[in-house]
Amino acid sequence: MRVYNFAAGPATMPLAVLDEARSELSDWRGSGMSVMEVSHRSKDFVQVARESEARMRRLMAVPEGYRVLFLQGGATGQFAAIPMNLTGPGDRVSYVNTGSWSAKAVAEARRYATVDVVADEAATNYTTVPDQDTLRPADGAAYLHYTPNETIGGVEFGYIPEVGDVPLVADMSSTIMSRPVEISRFGLIYAGAQKNLGPAGLCVVLVRDDLIRRSRERTPSVWDYRTMAAQESMLNTPPTFAWYLLGLTLKWLEDQGGLDAMAERNRTKAGRLYAAIDGSDFYANPVAESARSWMNVPFLLADPALEPVFLQQAQEAGLTNLEGHRSVGGLRASLYNAMPPEGVEALIDFMKEFERSHA
Amino acid sequence: MRVYNFAAGPATMPLAVLDEARSELSDWRGSGMSVMEVSHRSKDFVQVARESEARMRRLMAVPEGYRVLFLQGGATGQFAAIPMNLTGPGDRVSYVNTGSWSAKAVAEARRYATVDVVADEAATNYTTVPDQDTLRPADGAAYLHYTPNETIGGVEFGYIPEVGDVPLVADMSSTIMSRPVEISRFGLIYAGAQKNLGPAGLCVVLVRDDLIRRSRERTPSVWDYRTMAAQESMLNTPPTFAWYLLGLTLKWLEDQGGLDAMAERNRTKAGRLYAAIDGSDFYANPVAESARSWMNVPFLLADPALEPVFLQQAQEAGLTNLEGHRSVGGLRASLYNAMPPEGVEALIDFMKEFERSHA
Repeated sequence: MRVYNFAAGPATMPLAVLDEARSELSDWRGSGMSVMEVSHRSKDFVQVARESEARMRRLMAVPEGYRVLFLQGGATGQFAAIPMNLTGPGDRVSYVNTGSWSAKAVAEARRYATVDVVADEAATNYTTVPDQDTLRPADGAAYLHYTPNETIGGVEFGYIPEVGDVPLVADMSSTIMSRPVEISRFGLIYAGAQKNLGPAGLCVVLVRDDLIRRSRERTPSVWDYRTMAAQESMLNTPPTFAWYLLGLTLKWLEDQGGLDAMAERNRTKAGRLYAAIDGSDFYANPVAESARSWMNVPFLLADPALEPVFLQQAQEAGLTNLEGHRSVGGLRASLYNAMPPEGVEALIDFMKEFERSHA
Repeated sequence: MRVYNFAAGPATMPLAVLDEARSELSDWRGSGMSVMEVSHRSKDFVQVARESEARMRRLMAVPEGYRVLFLQGGATGQFAAIPMNLTGPGDRVSYVNTGSWSAKAVAEARRYATVDVVADEAATNYTTVPDQDTLRPADGAAYLHYTPNETIGGVEFGYIPEVGDVPLVADMSSTIMSRPVEISRFGLIYAGAQKNLGPAGLCVVLVRDDLIRRSRERTPSVWDYRTMAAQESMLNTPPTFAWYLLGLTLKWLEDQGGLDAMAERNRTKAGRLYAAIDGSDFYANPVAESARSWMNVPFLLADPALEPVFLQQAQEAGLTNLEGHRSVGGLRASLYNAMPPEGVEALIDFMKEFERSHA
């Protein structure tokens, strides 16, 4: 029996995608082989790769002048690859710190460039995002980096920072394709696939053409944007099965009505859960209302001692992976694209019943 | 209907592995989730990771004092990561050039260190390997790198180079676990998984403890051996599904009788095919007998104009991906662990029949 899986990533995937993958796992398109067993340079796989790029461009309404790269090493790899590709020695870069993931991006970037943390929410214990009017890159910044959604804190930007001519770089791992976004506002968007796009092992990078002209000496070839763009992300063997699953996931997204439909569904899912939390003294969410995440909803019990009981009974009710991140504790429900509205309703019903029996 | 797939990589996988993966693709171990959908830090997945490492150590008889890392970015990523981790600025390193893959490793290493190519088979058109008595690292080399098997040329070392105290580094992507190897002779062994170990997207690195003490500034964290060893290869989200499939493949290898059984099977498979080629004027293999690969058998037709006909009829007979690498042309049969002896016999029968009708 399938459960409702609220994991933060690797995360639940559409059952239709898993079913399709299963149906052809050892005989792909009548080839007598798995898609895992064919060359990345075969006609059929190149078609998978190109179709998935085209579908991504269509779904996200990517304007002309951007490259789409499919890389290995995850978003954490890009924490290094971005300054390697977008800065020269001695360059300054601006970072916004809104939680655990932006802090990790800062730490890795410091190894390659001088980092100015131009806004820092540590003082609020990462319960909100910087005010739109105050957020500015430092003078001479090669780019400004921010994390539109923090998966651990459940904090999300309700706006796209205005940074003038400075390229805006966004780690969209946990929010990509959860709603339409104006791509032209960004210089570079990157995202590990394992939350909204498919399984772990693939990282998507959308980068504006003019930013891939310069790349630093000693950038590893597999992360050199110029090289990888010229090779259609096939300088070396890509993670073909992950790429194929990403393609199936994008097809599923189109079948669901695209990003407008996703936005509506995700807004509703999160809104229903926050309303349930706010409507009770038994549950609480610490994040400022304007900065609440649609994707990751952390919550606390008035009596923390009940957490293990909550998790155990939720598990028995088919609601899994609701523990908060090990660094912060508490509870957390991740509501990525593939979490159906019925899963959120089942969680809300469970929470109400749990409150009734334990309040 | 399954075919016999002679692709060089991504390559054929054991049908038993694909069947097991399929049977639990959307409900892993009764969890109601796919293994792709669970956290890499969950108890169940950590067990998969640890079991696969233990199984690899057992199968390969890895002695104490080596770390096993599971990294992203492929062997091509390691072309950069190895000098990053094993050299300091100004260091010299020795490389052996026996074909396309060692040449790529040389080109990438030159970006990080001074490379001495201490043996080069370009003059033989890559049809043999250096003589055992002449192969030596240059004075002061931080390591000596070689490619035990070249997938394109079909050239393989019949011996392990003797390099004294200099760490020996081997790209075993196409030969790992195809037979027992004396691990203690090596400082570092690395291998992309997509030939003998599973699907693309995972790279295994075995490295001797004393070599991970030094790592160069600005080594990306996801490729820093020390960091990754300390984090059990989970600094960031690993490619979990690829890792799981690697685990199933290792289990299959144990069921087959381990590496001694594999060596016997692989020796026989290759021997049968070379005998068929050598026993005919219609087919030819250009490689020196002592340097012939068990894993990749390139061959030519006396009349190259017949190649497209050969490939077409082979495909119709259920024998696929027999074209040579695009850089060299001709034909090639890759005979990794997962290619059953029956596949090789079917190929030999087809070749004989093709010769009868076209000679």
